[in-house]
Amino acid sequence: MKKFEEKTTHTTPIFDGKIVKLQVDDVILPNGKAAKREIIKHPGAVAVIAITNEGKLVLVEQYRKALERSIIEIPAGKLEQGEEPIVTARRELEEETGYGAHEFTFLQAFATSPGFADEIIHIFVAKDLYQIEEKADLDEDEFVELLEVSLEEAQEMVANERIYDAKTAFAIIWFAMQQAK
Amino acid sequence: MKKFEEKTTHTTPIFDGKIVKLQVDDVILPNGKAAKREIIKHPGAVAVIAITNEGKLVLVEQYRKALERSIIEIPAGKLEQGEEPIVTARRELEEETGYGAHEFTFLQAFATSPGFADEIIHIFVAKDLYQIEEKADLDEDEFVELLEVSLEEAQEMVANERIYDAKTAFAIIWFAMQQAK
Repeated sequence: MKKFEEKTTHTTPIFDGKIVKLQVDDVILPNGKAAKREIIKHPGAVAVIAITNEGKLVLVEQYRKALERSIIEIPAGKLEQGEEPIVTARRELEEETGYGAHEFTFLQAFATSPGFADEIIHIFVAKDLYQIEEKADLDEDEFVELLEVSLEEAQEMVANERIYDAKTAFAIIWFAMQQAK
Repeated sequence: MKKFEEKTTHTTPIFDGKIVKLQVDDVILPNGKAAKREIIKHPGAVAVIAITNEGKLVLVEQYRKALERSIIEIPAGKLEQGEEPIVTARRELEEETGYGAHEFTFLQAFATSPGFADEIIHIFVAKDLYQIEEKADLDEDEFVELLEVSLEEAQEMVANERIYDAKTAFAIIWFAMQQAK
């Protein structure tokens, strides 16, 4: 896990934002030479595979400024400081979809962009859903539209790139494989 | 594709690095209110599922400073300015593994972190491999170790999180599903 370790000799903080921080680390490479690494610090995030009592997968469409387009994803959101991922998962599912879930199970975690960012996404599966009576508010800068599709439709949407983000594509395919076992 | 579009009124460049750029966009939300978006600009990347003539998947282990650990990935690298992804795929496979391939096919593309970055990864499948006689040099700050595993072993490594990054996990599972059809 530490093979080819790069030791930090100095960290230069560049930006401290609402979502990300950026720093440049001076490092010593395994061959003793010096190099610089540009690193995005992100608090981490959760994403939720929510299955309705009719067996449909709950998706949300939202505008992603970085891509300058709207995309279709599973409900997701970033961790607040010191928050357990399961807590974030419950909150984001409620806020983005109006669903609560009696059953939450952890599925998998992964790094999204290890070449430049430390973001880890924790995937949960939510079942035994119920409608929240007083739907929690979205963040004030968030606008989403719900879709409910079958797992077969979702896999088709991965194949034709209507689903276009790594967490959603991986989560759908991985979950479908586990179900098929 | 433009649902809930956020119009940019001003862009503040923050950082222009070797790998990433960071900017903060002032936007107008669909409800007319103003907000800020922190955006990482990345040139995009390729990743290669390379299958040896013995049917093994070629993996590389390397240190990822952002995660402060070494991880096991499929060969990958970022696009140079204006470069076609297939060209990057050939170069990165050769540099990181010493393999060339007579057959390259495009598999899928996806966004890795649409919440804050524009990075798109293009996945290719490389078959009919051959050893490069004079192995191309790695970038001078790159150190990698090769592994060759069966597709079954690779899927097991996703399940137990020895494979821990989105592109590799998705590519392995997606490729395995296509093969099984």
